[in-house]
Amino acid sequence: MKSPGHKNVRAEGSCEAREILALVGDKWSVYVVAMLSDGARRFSELRRAIDGISQRMLTLTLRGLERDGLVTRTVHPTVPPSVEYALTPLGRTLIPPIMTLVQWAEKNRARIRQAREKFDRR
Amino acid sequence: MKSPGHKNVRAEGSCEAREILALVGDKWSVYVVAMLSDGARRFSELRRAIDGISQRMLTLTLRGLERDGLVTRTVHPTVPPSVEYALTPLGRTLIPPIMTLVQWAEKNRARIRQAREKFDRR
Repeated sequence: MKSPGHKNVRAEGSCEAREILALVGDKWSVYVVAMLSDGARRFSELRRAIDGISQRMLTLTLRGLERDGLVTRTVHPTVPPSVEYALTPLGRTLIPPIMTLVQWAEKNRARIRQAREKFDRR
Repeated sequence: MKSPGHKNVRAEGSCEAREILALVGDKWSVYVVAMLSDGARRFSELRRAIDGISQRMLTLTLRGLERDGLVTRTVHPTVPPSVEYALTPLGRTLIPPIMTLVQWAEKNRARIRQAREKFDRR
């Protein structure tokens, strides 16, 4: 059951590991990056499209992604002003790893549903 | 800026997308799977190794992974009993997508730190 190629994850300092996972392991960040993968979106479009996210959580998620250099925020001087978000070149490099995860989940959804039903019956 | 291969993420129903991300987009789940990638671990070992996780959060994370069929829980009849967690074959298929994300984060850590410093100065 050994897989030497993955040992480095455990060997890292735990602060470092935590920092990494704070970046990539937040489900709302993952979803916003996926949503922006085919182009810029307005705040209101993201809000409508991401089921279950509150206005506050979306604001915090976007600010975090902007701070990390993954997303740009552009204010258009319309009345009322509209604010548009887009991936930066660095943000776009995150699309393939995220899609790998999403594809894994799509492929294994039925198996996971079965496991849950079995667990809940016991 | 279009990338047609990724459109399916937006086209999915949002409930479905939420279900997917609840599976894979939780940072503690990501970290526990990474920790178990080179073999079984006891609860206390996981607790010590995962900086910042509370006993309650680790319990909940492990129970969620067990319910999803990704982790097994084995109670050894020692005194006191020791409980060991390991990835199932399905859980092991999650290692490569997770490592892709972790490697992305390792590769881009310096860039992200620079972006943060710039953001915090403005």
